Amino acid sequence: MPLTVVGSIAFDSVRTPFGERERMLGGSAVHFSLAASFFTEVRVVGPVGEDFGSEQIAVLSEQGVNTDDVERVPGGETFFWRGHYDFDLNTAHTDDTQLNVFGDFRPKLSAGSREAEMLFLANIQPDLQREVRAQCTGARFTALDSMNLWIETARESLLAAIADVECVIVNDAEIRQLTEEPNLARAARAVMEMGPRAVVAKQGEYGAALFTEGAFFALPGFPLEDVRDPTGAGDSFAGGFLGYLDGLGSAPDDAALRRAMGYGTVLASFNVEEFGTERVVRLDRGEIDSRYEALRAMTRFDALPGS
Amino acid sequence: MPLTVVGSIAFDSVRTPFGERERMLGGSAVHFSLAASFFTEVRVVGPVGEDFGSEQIAVLSEQGVNTDDVERVPGGETFFWRGHYDFDLNTAHTDDTQLNVFGDFRPKLSAGSREAEMLFLANIQPDLQREVRAQCTGARFTALDSMNLWIETARESLLAAIADVECVIVNDAEIRQLTEEPNLARAARAVMEMGPRAVVAKQGEYGAALFTEGAFFALPGFPLEDVRDPTGAGDSFAGGFLGYLDGLGSAPDDAALRRAMGYGTVLASFNVEEFGTERVVRLDRGEIDSRYEALRAMTRFDALPGS
Repeated sequence: MPLTVVGSIAFDSVRTPFGERERMLGGSAVHFSLAASFFTEVRVVGPVGEDFGSEQIAVLSEQGVNTDDVERVPGGETFFWRGHYDFDLNTAHTDDTQLNVFGDFRPKLSAGSREAEMLFLANIQPDLQREVRAQCTGARFTALDSMNLWIETARESLLAAIADVECVIVNDAEIRQLTEEPNLARAARAVMEMGPRAVVAKQGEYGAALFTEGAFFALPGFPLEDVRDPTGAGDSFAGGFLGYLDGLGSAPDDAALRRAMGYGTVLASFNVEEFGTERVVRLDRGEIDSRYEALRAMTRFDALPGS
Repeated sequence: MPLTVVGSIAFDSVRTPFGERERMLGGSAVHFSLAASFFTEVRVVGPVGEDFGSEQIAVLSEQGVNTDDVERVPGGETFFWRGHYDFDLNTAHTDDTQLNVFGDFRPKLSAGSREAEMLFLANIQPDLQREVRAQCTGARFTALDSMNLWIETARESLLAAIADVECVIVNDAEIRQLTEEPNLARAARAVMEMGPRAVVAKQGEYGAALFTEGAFFALPGFPLEDVRDPTGAGDSFAGGFLGYLDGLGSAPDDAALRRAMGYGTVLASFNVEEFGTERVVRLDRGEIDSRYEALRAMTRFDALPGS
């Protein structure tokens, strides 16, 4: 404790078959922080513009997220994303991206954030991920996310960033692209050979898989009849996953990583039930734990007689 | 007991990045029968041509599959499929299909096959599925598979066929297409409202999900570093699933359906390790049960303290 996250803080305008919203609070660091806030003390690092007001800060701080390192850039505007989803909610269609202050972001971590024992490097340029990793000398467990853009345009830097973290949390297609290996089990092993001891393959509605040395674990997505906005699901997963691990206060073993997969799945499922952060800010730990147990019940099957 | 399956018996010529084979024994009824043969007595119903020899029959009969209702059509040729897979083994590319005797197939069931307590209607024209279903007056548990072609060209007949079975085992994309409902949980519920008490959504490498009244269960695909030929994976899944259920000899409850999902997953995983039926004909029940327990270990995670 605490857990530091570095990533985007954004305004998102999103349209899905179930409604639309203008300029909601969003961004990877926001979704991550809110999900993790149920388990531990979170410090969020990222830039915002002058259009980012006390109302947005309050969403984070009311959940107990430390916003000291939210950097307000004078004269700047906050990162903006506009996108939509058709009936296939698995595919986000980007209509507009304005990097704004995020385009010139150079993370500045306070002493409190640098001293975090756990660190999440959300999906940002890998050179920045490495800068942040180097600053966080006390981190004993670090994880990163990335995307196809960085695999294509900053591959060497991304490989160096991966070599320096304990855990990679990315979409399964990105694991394949990164390693040029279509078989996921082989691809995950190739990533572990770069350094990390754990690889989490996010698989959208199909759930997520965890690869560790000699072990495999997988969970389905929590089944929902009402998915309204998938934006932020992956970051909510990572927030539930790392937030739970950080809250343990000890080095995670495989059993802890599996429980963390459960919490990641649960937080992602709540996130997508409503637009933006609407559902997660109303959550309580009791709801989370109930769904965790429901997920366990959905994945249990009997041993063979006599085993 | 016994379990009757009606479907295609074929010669498959398959090329994957890991090799190729000419005119292997294949077809939905063959893959199903071999997978189910580890659990129960299977009777296979389907047409073959004069090119289908005692060597092919022996592959089935040596596994204990009853081939009395393999109908040899004088002057005919066996159903032939040629296809290939690129590095993405999830997508089959068809290069040639020759229906041959399968094009005029009218299932003729012997008394033994008609009296089966369990019946699998593999992916054939839904009118034929209904004819067979009507003949099997003793069946207490019946399941069917289908495909996009029948959803598009024989929708009403398919809906009638579905209304008359206990269980539907299809790809998740087909459940969505059939119901015109992109949300899988809603789509599965819509299928159950047509009649079946269970819906199994096959999800390729991601595994499979089981929907029953008020319950959900899902399993990942068994992780394999070596997948050589995915042809027949879905039918092997169905064979393991229904073979296990038939071997129980009693009406399956939800716990039995979950164990059956485990066996289906295991049989599918063995099937894809080698070309055609190569791996499954070398299998023994001990290997199957070991992998079943390994799958259980891969999906277990801790309860919350005190729960």
